[in-house]
Amino acid sequence: MVIIPKLIWALKGLQAISCQMHNRVTQLFNIEIPIIQAGMVWTSGWKLASAVSNAGGLGLIGAGSMTSDILKEHIVKCKAATVKPFGVNIPLLYSDIDKQVQIIIDEKVPVVFSSAGNPSTWTKYLKQHGITVVHVVSSSKFAKKAEDAGCDAVVAEGFEAGGHNGREETTTMVLVPLVTGAVNIPVIAAGGIATGKQMLAAMILGAEGVQIGSRFAVANEASCHENFKNAVVNATEGDTFLTLKKLTPVRLIKNNFFNRVQKAENQCASPEALEQLLGKGRARKGIFEGDTEEGELEIGQVSSLIKTTGSAESIITEIWKEFKDTLHTPL
Amino acid sequence: MVIIPKLIWALKGLQAISCQMHNRVTQLFNIEIPIIQAGMVWTSGWKLASAVSNAGGLGLIGAGSMTSDILKEHIVKCKAATVKPFGVNIPLLYSDIDKQVQIIIDEKVPVVFSSAGNPSTWTKYLKQHGITVVHVVSSSKFAKKAEDAGCDAVVAEGFEAGGHNGREETTTMVLVPLVTGAVNIPVIAAGGIATGKQMLAAMILGAEGVQIGSRFAVANEASCHENFKNAVVNATEGDTFLTLKKLTPVRLIKNNFFNRVQKAENQCASPEALEQLLGKGRARKGIFEGDTEEGELEIGQVSSLIKTTGSAESIITEIWKEFKDTLHTPL
Repeated sequence: MVIIPKLIWALKGLQAISCQMHNRVTQLFNIEIPIIQAGMVWTSGWKLASAVSNAGGLGLIGAGSMTSDILKEHIVKCKAATVKPFGVNIPLLYSDIDKQVQIIIDEKVPVVFSSAGNPSTWTKYLKQHGITVVHVVSSSKFAKKAEDAGCDAVVAEGFEAGGHNGREETTTMVLVPLVTGAVNIPVIAAGGIATGKQMLAAMILGAEGVQIGSRFAVANEASCHENFKNAVVNATEGDTFLTLKKLTPVRLIKNNFFNRVQKAENQCASPEALEQLLGKGRARKGIFEGDTEEGELEIGQVSSLIKTTGSAESIITEIWKEFKDTLHTPL
Repeated sequence: MVIIPKLIWALKGLQAISCQMHNRVTQLFNIEIPIIQAGMVWTSGWKLASAVSNAGGLGLIGAGSMTSDILKEHIVKCKAATVKPFGVNIPLLYSDIDKQVQIIIDEKVPVVFSSAGNPSTWTKYLKQHGITVVHVVSSSKFAKKAEDAGCDAVVAEGFEAGGHNGREETTTMVLVPLVTGAVNIPVIAAGGIATGKQMLAAMILGAEGVQIGSRFAVANEASCHENFKNAVVNATEGDTFLTLKKLTPVRLIKNNFFNRVQKAENQCASPEALEQLLGKGRARKGIFEGDTEEGELEIGQVSSLIKTTGSAESIITEIWKEFKDTLHTPL
């Protein structure tokens, strides 16, 4: 029995600062660093997406809060701002999905991340037009459906993620091994990831890349309101909660609106009553207009670890440096 | 810019099979492998605890389901079955806690893991008798309280863990960095850990050891009923859920009892009505007597990844091998 003082791990013959990573995710998107910036309503327009792509990750325009005309404008501006690959995230259940898909094809967007809907509806069509398609899932069952539909990869998004979420409440620590065990296509982990250590942990679980939302929501280039960014930076442990489970579960920062929902739910409000309480435009009000008490403040649990803003490039640099430094650190 | 085909990591000059690990957790308990077997009601008696300790981890007798006399019997038998360190897990809110503490002191148990209560009540007294004290927490606020109370380490237990759980629902991926950032004492991660990869992921997040429950609940030496073990092995994704939040949140396998609770909660049952529905001895019924439909089946989300039983030693060997193999695997 050899006894050593510590387990040491190290990159073999590699300088920490000047390395790239090549795996199926970096190859699929032709990117340098396997960090994907999540498509976020009212937050990830062309400025954020192009900044992330220019920094070596994959930026996504979040089409969920955009009309088709606005989406087209963002795609055109994104193409002008970067020569690197970028993508569009589309919620498949949206009413003008047909128009959005056509614009994505016409504008030759190289990558689509789809969510909130059936991947079999659009994947084949998008791929016929040479587009790489990734679907966001919250279970291995949906991951298999995405693989069967022809998706090139899946995002396995855990319970701790911000915004809309799955009903089984499987966390990233458990979901990533389940999904990597269920499909052969590459798995991108999401939910609870904002640091290099969390990125490395997710990749040890079997992911080949990470999708990061909350950390990029406070980037200088994010189009959400300063009040929302401040709410994210100021959020502490326990400040987000998965709510509105009778409608579609969504993780929000607790505020006046959240408290009213909780009160209604504690009084057994019907789904219809909750729909009425929710109303229209609640996410826009909170995230884009900055009404931090009456709006929906969609953000992940990991906001409790986010204390600074900065450029998208500085965020990627920080995460990637910590990722590599952790590989060099004795355990 | 140096471009390499893959990031490779490796243990420096170390043979994979024949290594031990020395860190603050292994030193604190004087164990070889930083795996602690969680104290589990009706499941972790002297047989399981001694088997885990004999295999190089730290076994815990779960006092939560034991009278003082039974606890004494288990401690005596555990001491006869192993010369290695072991511990007792005591829920601090239990009515006969005074007697249990006295037995632990009289029998010179080296380690106590406390949970479900205020660590300031007993920690000092236990430490005066030379006992190492660790407290289980679900937030960094409680972790700091435990550190202030003089605890030697904390277990940071995430939302995905089985049995009773915190109200903030912070997952292991987020909780471990929060807790390691808040305290100076060693942090042991719990919740969602059943494999060597999950163990390594938790330690990358900052933990210096892991507490594993579900995986050991199906060990040959576990005293729970075969029906319960079968329910754990057969549990698939989404089969556990955190429920009874109006009382004390508890993660259970969905069954008839769970369904009745859900129905009552959907109809806005009062805490009193839920207390009545819960009744007494529900965990014993499910876990020890094997009534898998009417009992409480307390187990973690990670049960969806557990497909085999085996001896405690084989489980530790399997986890520890995967942990070390993963350190050698190119990312």
